[in-house]
Amino acid sequence: MYAIVMAGGAGTRLWPLSRRGTPKQLLALTGDTSLLQQTVARLGSLLKPEDIYIITSQAHVRATQDQLPQLPPDNVLGEPLARSTAVAAGLAAVLVRRESDEVALVLPADHFVADTEAFSAALQQAALAAERGYLVTLGVVPAHPATGYGYIKAAAPLHPSAPTALVERFVEKPDASTAASFLADGGYLWNAGIFVWRTYVYRQAVERFQPQLASAFEQIESIHRTPGWMGRVRDILEGVPAIAIDTGIAEPAAAEGRMAVVPLDAGWSDIGSWSALLEALSAATGADLVASGRHLDRDSHRVLVHGGDRLVVTVGLEDVIIVDTPDALLVCHRDRAEEIKPVLDEIARTAGERYL
Amino acid sequence: MYAIVMAGGAGTRLWPLSRRGTPKQLLALTGDTSLLQQTVARLGSLLKPEDIYIITSQAHVRATQDQLPQLPPDNVLGEPLARSTAVAAGLAAVLVRRESDEVALVLPADHFVADTEAFSAALQQAALAAERGYLVTLGVVPAHPATGYGYIKAAAPLHPSAPTALVERFVEKPDASTAASFLADGGYLWNAGIFVWRTYVYRQAVERFQPQLASAFEQIESIHRTPGWMGRVRDILEGVPAIAIDTGIAEPAAAEGRMAVVPLDAGWSDIGSWSALLEALSAATGADLVASGRHLDRDSHRVLVHGGDRLVVTVGLEDVIIVDTPDALLVCHRDRAEEIKPVLDEIARTAGERYL
Repeated sequence: MYAIVMAGGAGTRLWPLSRRGTPKQLLALTGDTSLLQQTVARLGSLLKPEDIYIITSQAHVRATQDQLPQLPPDNVLGEPLARSTAVAAGLAAVLVRRESDEVALVLPADHFVADTEAFSAALQQAALAAERGYLVTLGVVPAHPATGYGYIKAAAPLHPSAPTALVERFVEKPDASTAASFLADGGYLWNAGIFVWRTYVYRQAVERFQPQLASAFEQIESIHRTPGWMGRVRDILEGVPAIAIDTGIAEPAAAEGRMAVVPLDAGWSDIGSWSALLEALSAATGADLVASGRHLDRDSHRVLVHGGDRLVVTVGLEDVIIVDTPDALLVCHRDRAEEIKPVLDEIARTAGERYL
Repeated sequence: MYAIVMAGGAGTRLWPLSRRGTPKQLLALTGDTSLLQQTVARLGSLLKPEDIYIITSQAHVRATQDQLPQLPPDNVLGEPLARSTAVAAGLAAVLVRRESDEVALVLPADHFVADTEAFSAALQQAALAAERGYLVTLGVVPAHPATGYGYIKAAAPLHPSAPTALVERFVEKPDASTAASFLADGGYLWNAGIFVWRTYVYRQAVERFQPQLASAFEQIESIHRTPGWMGRVRDILEGVPAIAIDTGIAEPAAAEGRMAVVPLDAGWSDIGSWSALLEALSAATGADLVASGRHLDRDSHRVLVHGGDRLVVTVGLEDVIIVDTPDALLVCHRDRAEEIKPVLDEIARTAGERYL
């Protein structure tokens, strides 16, 4: 068994902490270590360091290696061009050259999990189903009727005594009333983008559902480690569309009954925004004020303070997010954290690219 | 006519911008120049620079001189010990050695006035009444039923065609319903702590209502400019209680019918807190978002941003005050700005005196 940790995201909604040079997974958002370091540590009970691979953009290979000194440096794979998750997972499989019947854990580098044991147990369940030939995903037991996640509708269990079920279908991000009905009906799980499969099973699925991509992988395999091959890999990837695992592989596989899901109830969050971080850390700690750095508060609630060396004093705030960095400060209503993305365009235009 | 500008306050409620080394009056809160500079500029239409005196703590004499290069340096008077306004005004009168029948304008250094012309006109009206022997104060026409100011109840006008009236009585800061009844009844004005009188009239009032203070002033006069006299002034002031003009002089004078008031309707604020600054600048500009420094906003309301070099981005905030300084950041609910004062004790205890 081995893991491919996908570290290709930018995390622009976590501005001003996430920048072009230091994307989300390299940031210490939930403690003293980065999300990437926590993801790798979380895999430590299942895998040896040499069985953990990271795929990231070439620009971030060095910083990624620096954060993970316990991994062989070559386990950090540089992607010459970002082409979404189905491409990254397949490219990594080609590059790592593991046995084709080995089970691969494919997971994002930038998620938060409060309960590592429950997470490991779910991955082990998923590995069992993967060994039986399924494409497997972890489905998060919903904590509330979220509208920011896609859902997975679970069908019949594969075995009466096991938690693993067939996936009936994937559902796009719902509106609020649909999300509420999902929770009322039961059997719906959040799509967390975590996958487990035998290497050749994924390759076969790519051949079936994305033949253009399968042929790109074949070309890349044929030139593996030949002189100047990375430039050619880039050329090959340029001819390939961006394909996500969810829509490009998992959905059609589910329609053919080849997709299984293991429920995950471990305090998971994708930390897709500052408000998601506040929610995840509040749930994990039971406190409605979450602060890092030098901070002093008087009677604030549902507040996140991400600080550094400067003293941050908060008084009587409700539903506010504060992110303090050396050159930029964000103060944002908790319900408006998604709006950072459009604001970034204005920042680039008026304040300058150096803030991105 | 001459002016004594009282610059003895600390303005702790304007932390983290106001610090021990840079008290409120030296800060540029309402534009490019400090409140002190604006106060002196406001007097420019009535007085020549050599007729404007500042009394401040000895620690701030140099900084005060630096901000007011147009004044003779000796016009900045250093107070060896802070003993509130009645003492400061009397000490300044001793030190400046003006003719005893000259009219003195005694006013705080750290107030905001939107309409300079209306302010000057009110001072001129006050000077007319002062020449007739009254102790005169300016009373601010209330913009709303404030509970943070004391009130002045005006009695009969001194003259049918003039705005000046006798003071019936001074009223302590009221509760909300009392304040509302004041506005409904009419004839109530905010006590702004601005006074106008002939020099000897004030001296006589001190003799009548604060004889201990009058004798201290006599002692100080008798040693004026003798060797080592400032040390002795300090000793004398140590034996004197802190006495405010309002309670120690103006209230008993009003009870004897010797106190007159001129209404002031000029967008005045004492800027006693960050929320008072937001209110004053919002009223002056008509905007409910008041920002300085590098700032970018998306849909925030009733928000004050006092920034500097760093980029401050606000998104969807309501009723929030943000004050960004190099070593400390305050984010405070607009209605809780008064609570900075108790928080400062905690800052000193936990974060360190260097932040004060």
